[in-house]
Amino acid sequence: MVGHMDPWFFTVADQVATMLRLVFRTENRLTYAVSGTGSAGMETAVHNVVEPGDTVVVGVAGVFGARIAETARRAGADVVALEEPWGRIVPTERIASAVKAHPDAKLVALVHAETSTGVHQPLEEVGELLAGTDVLFLVDSVTGLGGVPLEVDDWHLDVVYSGTQKCLSVPPGLAPITFSRKAERVMDERRSAVRSWYFDVAGVRQYWGTERVYHHTAPISSIFGLHEGLSLVLEEGLEKRWARHAEVGWHFQEQIQDRDATLLAQEGYRLPQLTSLAWPDRVDEGVLRRRLLERHGIEVGGGLGPFAGTAWRVGLMGEGATHANVDRLLDAVDELLESTLP
Amino acid sequence: MVGHMDPWFFTVADQVATMLRLVFRTENRLTYAVSGTGSAGMETAVHNVVEPGDTVVVGVAGVFGARIAETARRAGADVVALEEPWGRIVPTERIASAVKAHPDAKLVALVHAETSTGVHQPLEEVGELLAGTDVLFLVDSVTGLGGVPLEVDDWHLDVVYSGTQKCLSVPPGLAPITFSRKAERVMDERRSAVRSWYFDVAGVRQYWGTERVYHHTAPISSIFGLHEGLSLVLEEGLEKRWARHAEVGWHFQEQIQDRDATLLAQEGYRLPQLTSLAWPDRVDEGVLRRRLLERHGIEVGGGLGPFAGTAWRVGLMGEGATHANVDRLLDAVDELLESTLP
Repeated sequence: MVGHMDPWFFTVADQVATMLRLVFRTENRLTYAVSGTGSAGMETAVHNVVEPGDTVVVGVAGVFGARIAETARRAGADVVALEEPWGRIVPTERIASAVKAHPDAKLVALVHAETSTGVHQPLEEVGELLAGTDVLFLVDSVTGLGGVPLEVDDWHLDVVYSGTQKCLSVPPGLAPITFSRKAERVMDERRSAVRSWYFDVAGVRQYWGTERVYHHTAPISSIFGLHEGLSLVLEEGLEKRWARHAEVGWHFQEQIQDRDATLLAQEGYRLPQLTSLAWPDRVDEGVLRRRLLERHGIEVGGGLGPFAGTAWRVGLMGEGATHANVDRLLDAVDELLESTLP
Repeated sequence: MVGHMDPWFFTVADQVATMLRLVFRTENRLTYAVSGTGSAGMETAVHNVVEPGDTVVVGVAGVFGARIAETARRAGADVVALEEPWGRIVPTERIASAVKAHPDAKLVALVHAETSTGVHQPLEEVGELLAGTDVLFLVDSVTGLGGVPLEVDDWHLDVVYSGTQKCLSVPPGLAPITFSRKAERVMDERRSAVRSWYFDVAGVRQYWGTERVYHHTAPISSIFGLHEGLSLVLEEGLEKRWARHAEVGWHFQEQIQDRDATLLAQEGYRLPQLTSLAWPDRVDEGVLRRRLLERHGIEVGGGLGPFAGTAWRVGLMGEGATHANVDRLLDAVDELLESTLP
């Protein structure tokens, strides 16, 4: 352990920021790791660019879209929620007409990889749409970063946050985040203090930047972990990592459908790293899931919200996205299906 | 690594909560570790009990008292700041008259162990004073917990938070926190949503409690670290740990004064685990401090605020509070003083 103001530690922090820029595909100077898990990234993103009375357009088709909307309300925003059924994307045309209908909108927020549904939200066209305007584009890529293509600069994304424990394969505890110059200008022009002191970018950036002014104690050992995880990502190569996730994920999705599982995410918009699926009525998903954990040591997520009690969420992320893991899971499922069904 | 919803992990979390109750000296059911460093504990404490328009009395005699005041303002409070010079306590009489002068006060907040000054704030009388009233007593014990006596129940403290990286000797990343039933009632009666979603006790308590409802991903490996650190604290025994900190700290303070250093905290109210001191004019504190780190691998904190450029802050905390460490530091200081002075 070293101190959080130790000169050597700052070289580690600088390297983390440099590597984050590479995985975010950005040259944004304001790129760092928030001292909290993914939802702390969301809180930082929303509270720093939103002020009371702002109009904010949020795509809501799962837990995390709903959470952005709720966080924006708590930041004082008037939220325009574009709701879509779970398992569907938010179509670009809906966003375009919402922005037209709300010319005062300050922000559009979307979830890149909706962890509750397995849906892969397209971002590029929305980025194109907003690029020439004053509207900021905020993106939740907690489950996206490192697993599927994400091009912060090329797609004109203004505020993007992620988590460490998904496709980066680092213990949970930090939320990588990046802000464009456009977002910086919006923050510079704030008329009110950010409601959160802990997540206030104006303070935190003086610690991660060249000023090295104490703000709060950084979680040193978590940052060491992120340093190692990012090194492994870049050693593999980001494109290769995306390709590996795709190959392994598509293979699993093909195979699991052969076992009569139904995929819950809209065709053509499925994440390879997170598969949501439902079993036929004859299968008790809860029993199967518990036995998978108890007998085979394999954890699969349960459904949230409207998917609770029916869906499985299978993560094949980061170091876990291997054919060997898929085979192990399929073998275990086959064995359990055979032994538990009549 | 296990999942944050893994049944086995919940047994670890339960043990952490049980051990936290033992070190906080409380039976408060609402006792857990906030997913962030010490200032995240402050944010959780303040935002959950304060609503816009509330009057809040805060003792301000250093960085952390000022930070509580600022956090309360961002939560929408009208802050009555009881300012005292750095290095002094906030006298109980001042608090008593402030509460009398502001009969609508909802909360009194004090810093138990002011990390910026080394002052040990008395709490017991203030707790006595507020116990029979509707006023909550909020205490920052980031640097106190595990190092000096802290009796949450006996002293009638309602909201107390700490950090892991001080006298518990655990990596930074979590903020232990505890709420009395009186504080729970105040939170139950809120008329407005907590401004922070991430730190909202109403959500987080369903994860740490028996409901086991997902709120945000807990920083699993940090909680493992806290589990081990608390086990070591209890293995040593809390009273023995307090006595060790006192013995080592007083010895250091005696010895360092023999080297012409002046202690900056008010006599009779000095923390043993954190000594703030100033050198005579002939000594360049910055040069001495840098050489101590570079040549001897010993990190001493610099002064903050009005103490910047003059003060040292020497931490003898947790596993670091040993006579061997004091001897190593004194030897290094003696050598550097001899070699750098004419």
